[in-house]
Amino acid sequence: MANLGFVGLGVMGSRMAKRLLDAGHSVTGYNRTRSKAQWLLDAGMKWADSPRAVAEATEITFSMIANTQALEAVTGGADGILAGLSAGKIYVDMSTVSPAAVRDLAIQVEAKGAQMLDSPVSGSVTTLEEGKLSFMVGGKRDTFEKVLPILQAIGPKATYVGANGLAVSMKVATNLSLAVQMLAFSEGVLLAEKSGIARETAVEVLLNSVMASPMVKYRGPFVLKMPDEAWFDVNMMQKDLLLALEMGLQLDVPLPTTAIANQMLTAARGMGLADKDFAIIFEVLARMAGVK
Amino acid sequence: MANLGFVGLGVMGSRMAKRLLDAGHSVTGYNRTRSKAQWLLDAGMKWADSPRAVAEATEITFSMIANTQALEAVTGGADGILAGLSAGKIYVDMSTVSPAAVRDLAIQVEAKGAQMLDSPVSGSVTTLEEGKLSFMVGGKRDTFEKVLPILQAIGPKATYVGANGLAVSMKVATNLSLAVQMLAFSEGVLLAEKSGIARETAVEVLLNSVMASPMVKYRGPFVLKMPDEAWFDVNMMQKDLLLALEMGLQLDVPLPTTAIANQMLTAARGMGLADKDFAIIFEVLARMAGVK
Amino acid sequence: MANLGFVGLGVMGSRMAKRLLDAGHSVTGYNRTRSKAQWLLDAGMKWADSPRAVAEATEITFSMIANTQALEAVTGGADGILAGLSAGKIYVDMSTVSPAAVRDLAIQVEAKGAQMLDSPVSGSVTTLEEGKLSFMVGGKRDTFEKVLPILQAIGPKATYVGANGLAVSMKVATNLSLAVQMLAFSEGVLLAEKSGIARETAVEVLLNSVMASPMVKYRGPFVLKMPDEAWFDVNMMQKDLLLALEMGLQLDVPLPTTAIANQMLTAARGMGLADKDFAIIFEVLARMAGVK
Amino acid sequence: MANLGFVGLGVMGSRMAKRLLDAGHSVTGYNRTRSKAQWLLDAGMKWADSPRAVAEATEITFSMIANTQALEAVTGGADGILAGLSAGKIYVDMSTVSPAAVRDLAIQVEAKGAQMLDSPVSGSVTTLEEGKLSFMVGGKRDTFEKVLPILQAIGPKATYVGANGLAVSMKVATNLSLAVQMLAFSEGVLLAEKSGIARETAVEVLLNSVMASPMVKYRGPFVLKMPDEAWFDVNMMQKDLLLALEMGLQLDVPLPTTAIANQMLTAARGMGLADKDFAIIFEVLARMAGVK
Repeated sequence: MANLGFVGLGVMGSRMAKRLLDAGHSVTGYNRTRSKAQWLLDAGMKWADSPRAVAEATEITFSMIANTQALEAVTGGADGILAGLSAGKIYVDMSTVSPAAVRDLAIQVEAKGAQMLDSPVSGSVTTLEEGKLSFMVGGKRDTFEKVLPILQAIGPKATYVGANGLAVSMKVATNLSLAVQMLAFSEGVLLAEKSGIARETAVEVLLNSVMASPMVKYRGPFVLKMPDEAWFDVNMMQKDLLLALEMGLQLDVPLPTTAIANQMLTAARGMGLADKDFAIIFEVLARMAGVK
Repeated sequence: MANLGFVGLGVMGSRMAKRLLDAGHSVTGYNRTRSKAQWLLDAGMKWADSPRAVAEATEITFSMIANTQALEAVTGGADGILAGLSAGKIYVDMSTVSPAAVRDLAIQVEAKGAQMLDSPVSGSVTTLEEGKLSFMVGGKRDTFEKVLPILQAIGPKATYVGANGLAVSMKVATNLSLAVQMLAFSEGVLLAEKSGIARETAVEVLLNSVMASPMVKYRGPFVLKMPDEAWFDVNMMQKDLLLALEMGLQLDVPLPTTAIANQMLTAARGMGLADKDFAIIFEVLARMAGVK
Repeated sequence: MANLGFVGLGVMGSRMAKRLLDAGHSVTGYNRTRSKAQWLLDAGMKWADSPRAVAEATEITFSMIANTQALEAVTGGADGILAGLSAGKIYVDMSTVSPAAVRDLAIQVEAKGAQMLDSPVSGSVTTLEEGKLSFMVGGKRDTFEKVLPILQAIGPKATYVGANGLAVSMKVATNLSLAVQMLAFSEGVLLAEKSGIARETAVEVLLNSVMASPMVKYRGPFVLKMPDEAWFDVNMMQKDLLLALEMGLQLDVPLPTTAIANQMLTAARGMGLADKDFAIIFEVLARMAGVK
Repeated sequence: MANLGFVGLGVMGSRMAKRLLDAGHSVTGYNRTRSKAQWLLDAGMKWADSPRAVAEATEITFSMIANTQALEAVTGGADGILAGLSAGKIYVDMSTVSPAAVRDLAIQVEAKGAQMLDSPVSGSVTTLEEGKLSFMVGGKRDTFEKVLPILQAIGPKATYVGANGLAVSMKVATNLSLAVQMLAFSEGVLLAEKSGIARETAVEVLLNSVMASPMVKYRGPFVLKMPDEAWFDVNMMQKDLLLALEMGLQLDVPLPTTAIANQMLTAARGMGLADKDFAIIFEVLARMAGVK
């Protein structure tokens, strides 16, 4: 069993750390707010007083952070992860941040004699809890092979995609489909509803059809009742789409459906719905169709 | 066990009939080309010389026909299904044809004292063979309940959506997502590929992600190698999109992603790719991106 | 000076007839409602009791009719234009109807020994009154050359585009830009307005810029105050876009901006704005942007 | 007559300076490459050895610069325009640069006791030479009124839009229509051409129709023969669209046609056409339609 660290014990991170504990690993954790990690401490996790302390105390440090800026905060400075890394250690970041930020960080990690992987995930809290989370991994292949058995304690499928930064690129290339699929789903629900089919029935049929991706299965019912709290809101989804559109521009890849879905999310913000789960794209289309 | 009929023993229809035979039902079949049905006759199916003869000989007649015009050919005239129907019989059409044609046909069936269901399917040959096909069903609810156990011999899930014609509407509302999802999938593959990730790897990651609907899992690999024979070609897919767009126009439902996917399929035809599986939408986008 | 006939003395037709009178031609007219033509009779126009009587009494008969169905009503039957045509006469239809209907009509005209031109116009009432209307003309070239000097009494520019029906095709290819230009104009006005520029100012600047087509100059001010009566409403505009989309489908021409503008007009109908001038596309976008 | 300065004597700037000379004003100019300004010196322009020297020697200094970075080069530093400004002087920048850069510059100008206007133009070299250029002006209104008579020597129409930076915002809101109009124009030309109308004829008819904006009149013929040298290439046009899309994102204004035109320009780059005039969007669509 390995000696692991985990920085960033939020909704996703904490559940990942728990799965590592459950698999029998030693886990040392750090979170900005300690109280939120109490249940993990009760389950056997050790505490460290800083990201640096986590990295110093363990062989492999994982992090799961909200965005590029927050990632820089936990990796840099006197108390940061970088300060705690040394030869032979491995740092695995699971956040979805900009590919450029990941590449920069990997260079700094290697300057310490350590190795980095970027390993963003595909899936939600539910996917994670069902043990079905999948990973895309960027970095050196032999580092990937060392870490693979540990990742599999979290989710069954990890695919090596290439050099550092490429896993984040792959994540962005994946996420554009989420917004587009929800928009097409919404078009179908509204067509069915205006044909005379109950919205509940339309959703049920679609969720049993060949177009029902895991994401649609999970988020489709939101068009019947939006969740009280957004799991991935309009602003978050649009940040991923913008990253995709920026990549498309740099790499000369036209992204027609991404561009249209992005404009519909802009309309969601125009209509005052920015903090709703991005499934609210249905509501934007419904208003355009004159459906209450 | 029931006394069933089946008209239209093509790729889908023949496999459906086989599942009915396997479930222990008596099946009497008719196909324009008898030789194609030999394997079913070998498996115990009885032959009838016309659609009318099928309907006369059985309690419930199923049909699976390519398009509206062909459906009219097997239902009308002296040898048609209508001529063979009488009080108490049931006719179940599984084709994807225009809702208006279905409504007209249902009226003629009722004039015979019989009942009709429209029961299009969601899924491909593969889905059917895996026993995972799902049905949407339109017609009278008590007729639906009578036929339900028999449908379940073909696929596990049948959802009653309302009056005759509505199941076909629901089917169209489902199918628009197929083209849109393949286009968004293609955007993601090309973004990943131009980032430096091998196309094979990009496809693998996407197929293991939350965006991988059954349709994407099935058709996504086509961007690595197009099938020799299209299973659902550009023209077929575009016919369904046009039916969706026509419904959107009549019902005042804007369909932005459907409209864009439709234009990309038009481009596929412009580029001479009309007879390819509609996954060729990837090739259209690849040419726009300058990818060979 | 020529001996001319005019059938269909509506808003556009009557003003055209007046220009022909003003140019010194003899004009014999017919309109379903005679009272609407009184001012033309006062100005020297002769009256005929049927479309047939117009064609019998004159060398060249013009018509300006609302749609394909109405055109069939004035050309067919015992009292129709066709019944009044004979060898050597010319019939010029200026309506925007389906290319197929025009081609059929031309064949019937030739069977009478007469010649037909389809000659739809580009421009509004205002353009007409300013003497700036332009024509596209389909039919035999020598017939076009005979009629050209007379058309020029109505508007300065007539372009021969080819065989019968092609002028109507050309008209449709022109009109798609009207909806698209108004949508792009609306995007610009809303961007400027939300930047802090008064809507009036934004409109003024745009109307003085290189993007100000005659149509935009005319219709742009509608975003400040919609006219009480639509000059070309959402339904009319969408009919032209649908004709374009149908042509695109048949001819394999992708029409991305036409498709998007069409969906926005569908949204206008969904929002209950079908009978407004199509400049109401601004209102659709404004609602999406949360602008009152 | 006024004592004026002009920095940036490129294709547009030099022709503006010439119009100021022709109007009887004294003009002192500076350009990075003096030789390009020889024809203006021959026409009576005075030379200054730096942007600073221009500002020191004159009451009102104009500049016309390619982009934000180049503007910073001529305004900042020891030899820059800012260094030459003092109380009572006026600085008018006609470049299309980012609104934020303009606002920053205006603050620095006011710190010198001087006043700034941002005054981008609508129109091309041709528009300028025909004396039809129009201006949008941002800054203090009384400064605008002082400069107005001088602007009118260059072009007839200048509209005050509000505070510094707003004129550049207005320019961006205008320019998005250029790409969209060319794309819609291309759709029309290809529809007509595939209907059987010669491309030359289709262009001629469109240029005589109500959709023919000054920009379309100027650029439309490029679909018959692309110019040897681009006047506004794909990269330039796309920069303006990206600025519009960024504004739309910040201000919550959906920009559906802008987004689509932008993706088609990305396709132009994917096809290797980045350095062509943006009218090459026609070629992108033609390839999608299978037209050579």
